[in-house]
Amino acid sequence: MLEIPTFEDIQEAAERIRPYAHRTPVFTCATLNERFGARLFFKCENFQKVGAFKFRGACNAVFSLSEEEARLGVATHSSGNHAAALALAAKLRGIQAHIVMPENSAKIKIAAVKDYGAAITFCKPTLEARETVLAEVVEKTGAILIHPYDNAQVIAGQGTAALELLEEIPDLDMIMAPVSGGGPMSGTAIAARGLAPRIELIGVEPEAADDAYRSLRAGELMPLTSSITIADGLRATLSERTFTILRTHDCSIVTVSEAAIIEGMRLIWERMKIVIEPSAAVTIAALLENKVSISGKCVGIILSGGNVDLNQLPW
Amino acid sequence: MLEIPTFEDIQEAAERIRPYAHRTPVFTCATLNERFGARLFFKCENFQKVGAFKFRGACNAVFSLSEEEARLGVATHSSGNHAAALALAAKLRGIQAHIVMPENSAKIKIAAVKDYGAAITFCKPTLEARETVLAEVVEKTGAILIHPYDNAQVIAGQGTAALELLEEIPDLDMIMAPVSGGGPMSGTAIAARGLAPRIELIGVEPEAADDAYRSLRAGELMPLTSSITIADGLRATLSERTFTILRTHDCSIVTVSEAAIIEGMRLIWERMKIVIEPSAAVTIAALLENKVSISGKCVGIILSGGNVDLNQLPW
Repeated sequence: MLEIPTFEDIQEAAERIRPYAHRTPVFTCATLNERFGARLFFKCENFQKVGAFKFRGACNAVFSLSEEEARLGVATHSSGNHAAALALAAKLRGIQAHIVMPENSAKIKIAAVKDYGAAITFCKPTLEARETVLAEVVEKTGAILIHPYDNAQVIAGQGTAALELLEEIPDLDMIMAPVSGGGPMSGTAIAARGLAPRIELIGVEPEAADDAYRSLRAGELMPLTSSITIADGLRATLSERTFTILRTHDCSIVTVSEAAIIEGMRLIWERMKIVIEPSAAVTIAALLENKVSISGKCVGIILSGGNVDLNQLPW
Repeated sequence: MLEIPTFEDIQEAAERIRPYAHRTPVFTCATLNERFGARLFFKCENFQKVGAFKFRGACNAVFSLSEEEARLGVATHSSGNHAAALALAAKLRGIQAHIVMPENSAKIKIAAVKDYGAAITFCKPTLEARETVLAEVVEKTGAILIHPYDNAQVIAGQGTAALELLEEIPDLDMIMAPVSGGGPMSGTAIAARGLAPRIELIGVEPEAADDAYRSLRAGELMPLTSSITIADGLRATLSERTFTILRTHDCSIVTVSEAAIIEGMRLIWERMKIVIEPSAAVTIAALLENKVSISGKCVGIILSGGNVDLNQLPW
């Protein structure tokens, strides 16, 4: 049985995470509105705790656990934002987080996870190694596994960003969000359909990691054949659960080039003076490449995160 | 006679520019509060129009002109933010701006000034050439000269940022702002003394361009002996007017190293996910170098601008 969150689950998630997560601001930019001939509303999840919307999902999952479930802590494998998000959520609940990280993870991310008090186990940088080591950690500690996106409570948490955005700007014609494993887009879709049944939902993916695009076209889950993209947060693949949600909520997927992702990221830095990560720039890339028809529309854009290595900028 | 703006002038400026300028947000950052043991409130003028608080001063000056004065346009020399600010303010009033720019100005800044419809005259990159060419332009066009900081209406306009900040956070113990020609610090001082007579006022300057520091210590205007600093917005020198205001409003000046400016800029990008320019980072540099005693205090910080060449980052 596939547990799929409902609109009510997202409303409950919003209540649950309210004491811990930021209600992030919605930014606008006259220059970009003029350039794209639309009214754009940016939900700034780069300002979220740990610098990414991922905190919403991790926080909702951790605080949804019963006392009994939470007692032995939580565990996941992640090299990125979910690791920090789960570590902080666990710290806030006062339980232990066990994070399996590939040994080649960025030092700054390892440091952040350590700072939040998580126990880190390093592994070889392959998906197989990550899953094997995580299984061992769960076996040994009894911690509850919190998957980064294939988890109904995580998805419900991610949906709270779109919920807040639509509360603030109710007349959106469209919402755009990045797609990787499909967690945020799934949460966004459920939240948006609950409040605005006819809204257009556009997920954006790098061409270089386009499994969601191909899966929705084929009508069945297609494997990720490669994931060499600068958008390092978008290298995961849909699960049965997120695929089902995207299909049943009438989400369209468009893909964008690496060059457009870099240009989009730079455009936001220069024009809006905010730092977003490459994964958050795919939506802007879709506008730059005219992949979406937005002329005259009121468009919400989920800027998913702002964690960038300033020593390795792509320009 | 030295025309010095009063607190009432700043209140009038706030009314005057309200239809044109952004009321910028005040940001906080739990990580930085913890690190510095204080409550920090950042007035985000990097989100101001043209990406800098300079727009407030230029806008107030342009809209303070009578119809008769405004008829023949406005003029200034500037390679940076004041050029764009004056060009946009003039465009909004529907009058011509004449900008004298050094021929080695950044291409992106020249493009911005052109985009706003200003007439640009290029000159050699020396102060003498700038002033000579500007005098010719004023002679020829009859435009009104709007000095970047030695102008009472400009100073009054700059003060509106501190006015908004104190309206929002009335219990500040201290306000910090960068010092160059002293326009923003002067405006800040007048606004702050009007609302909070006992507030501490700290201006921050690069060690490499420390004329304000030396002038206030000496009790007389000291010349700028060098200005080779990464904080390219802080290379100007106090005028008799701004010197007088800083003295009579009990402003302290501290100086900071180039390394600390770079570290401060990076810290804000990484932790707050916002883009600030080196000139805006001097206040953070002062905290990093323990130049100011802020422990337990409630501190307002004017983040003056966010215009950075992303191709020439200092790390």
